[in-house]
Amino acid sequence: MNNDLIILGHGSGGRLSHQLLDELIIPILGDNGVAGQNDAALLDPPPGRLAFTTDSYVVDPVFFPGGSIGSLAIHGTVNDLAMMGARPLYISVGLIIEEGFSKADLEFILRDMRQAADQAAVRIVTGDTKVVPHGKVDKIFINTSGIGVIGHDLPISGSNAQPGDKIIISGTIGDHGIAIMANREGLKLDTEILSDSAPLNSLVDAIIAEAFSNLHVLRDPTRGGVATTIKEIAQQSGVSITLYEENMPIKPAVRGVCSILGLDPLFVANEGKLLAFIAPETAEQVLNVIRQHPAGRDAAIIGAVTGTEAGRVQMETIIGGLRAVEMLAGEQLPRIC
Amino acid sequence: MNNDLIILGHGSGGRLSHQLLDELIIPILGDNGVAGQNDAALLDPPPGRLAFTTDSYVVDPVFFPGGSIGSLAIHGTVNDLAMMGARPLYISVGLIIEEGFSKADLEFILRDMRQAADQAAVRIVTGDTKVVPHGKVDKIFINTSGIGVIGHDLPISGSNAQPGDKIIISGTIGDHGIAIMANREGLKLDTEILSDSAPLNSLVDAIIAEAFSNLHVLRDPTRGGVATTIKEIAQQSGVSITLYEENMPIKPAVRGVCSILGLDPLFVANEGKLLAFIAPETAEQVLNVIRQHPAGRDAAIIGAVTGTEAGRVQMETIIGGLRAVEMLAGEQLPRIC
Repeated sequence: MNNDLIILGHGSGGRLSHQLLDELIIPILGDNGVAGQNDAALLDPPPGRLAFTTDSYVVDPVFFPGGSIGSLAIHGTVNDLAMMGARPLYISVGLIIEEGFSKADLEFILRDMRQAADQAAVRIVTGDTKVVPHGKVDKIFINTSGIGVIGHDLPISGSNAQPGDKIIISGTIGDHGIAIMANREGLKLDTEILSDSAPLNSLVDAIIAEAFSNLHVLRDPTRGGVATTIKEIAQQSGVSITLYEENMPIKPAVRGVCSILGLDPLFVANEGKLLAFIAPETAEQVLNVIRQHPAGRDAAIIGAVTGTEAGRVQMETIIGGLRAVEMLAGEQLPRIC
Repeated sequence: MNNDLIILGHGSGGRLSHQLLDELIIPILGDNGVAGQNDAALLDPPPGRLAFTTDSYVVDPVFFPGGSIGSLAIHGTVNDLAMMGARPLYISVGLIIEEGFSKADLEFILRDMRQAADQAAVRIVTGDTKVVPHGKVDKIFINTSGIGVIGHDLPISGSNAQPGDKIIISGTIGDHGIAIMANREGLKLDTEILSDSAPLNSLVDAIIAEAFSNLHVLRDPTRGGVATTIKEIAQQSGVSITLYEENMPIKPAVRGVCSILGLDPLFVANEGKLLAFIAPETAEQVLNVIRQHPAGRDAAIIGAVTGTEAGRVQMETIIGGLRAVEMLAGEQLPRIC
């Protein structure tokens, strides 16, 4: 038995499971004294409504420029909570590991999770580990669920976009999807493209502090990209939206890979960007606040709510025309997150 | 494109993802008005400490006598919360589906989840769906995370076993593991063995109402079986435990399959049973209460905390000897849950 690899017994619930927990998982993720070896964590939440979210991460490859499946799994769930205007507090970690996966790689992923959690000021409080036979899962999948608390009454929601709202993107688009794609395709690039995977909760705090009730919608444009997310919001809120191609922040290297591969960056996934819909009178101030935040330096106003025709999205192109924007059809890039 | 199968686009986050949500997932699981199409559910928890737990389910086969991966995923997480003495309230569902999986099978699994959730009086409030290419996951894996509320101050915990405690099992042991094993091995049996997968929260309510502070430990002996769970509790509580083989409730059919396959039922997984450690003066009353509950008809006192030598577990065998009981070593049966 090779002691450097994960074996089925590590998922048995028996002696080897305890060994993996005691030697690797708990020392790195920390049990924080809340779960111990019980079946659930006991938590004292501050008063307020709770936000509760879940996401599974199946990204391929598990290590990519700018992150790993571990940090991605923390950032994604932190951001889902932050997009509700919640303060992320507690995270659960469900690992599904392929028999034969390297313990060293697992250790790297766990350390990356812990670091991401510390950076976002969330606590990993409970978890579960399953091991499945070789060939029954591809390397490692991770589920993170999260609990946050909402200490305000702002109706931040995908259904709260209002005519006149300006739409801010917090930075360049398409970085995550293109980082994964370039890595998977083995493209040789002059400038390495890094995933933008990052926690957005402190940026959200800054936006709320500036905008208060003038903040109507927050959403992170992950799978399906900016186009799909904007279309969703237009449908949910019953409004029409115009985007301005000219204002869309895109890194030249990302634009380059997109044109080589025939991809539209508007449909490419982001993992560290948010869209904020802000009442027009406050939009410039909020944009300035976002640009002063490390996670928002390239922020721009990329569109506006321009009418009440539910679900209609169009883009003013650089050459001056208008084109309809639809949701991503089919699958552009499997296992992006 | 075969319209009866799940395709990669159903996990894209784009148009097909929305279609799957709107046509299948939300109508069956129900969005309960709390998540809408936002990234997280908003919840108003009753006052009290929270319990938070997560589990991934990778059981093979996904349909088995007595249940499916769907009901199992609900029962398992409901029970993890109940074992903390918490009232389960909210469940998240993370689906990871293999490309080519049948929509009809998915529908069956979702209906089974909904029914199990209704039976346990928990609400499915948020979810996530990923689709991965054929061969990258075996059919379907499901993560459920759960939030419960604890409305009492009882220190129910694996580290709270006390000398003199009687140990009650709520029914026959080994049913789930042997149901899966017999099904997977294609054994022809006179009596079909059904999984015991079931929610235990209402049974826990009844136990707490009878025992109050005389209830010290609750734990469901899933992976690793009764032996592993008892050993864990002995270690966590720093006590020694004696089990009585004679009192161990085992269905004859389960015993039969165990002897054919050379398995010890003490190490076989259960999914609808609990172990309760009760102060001796109340144990018989609590046993009676458990036996009157539909989930506890075959309950029995199977052991006691007999000393303070941390982690020592022994069993008085039917023929009169004593044998040491250890945790499950290695993996008896992969993908049991």
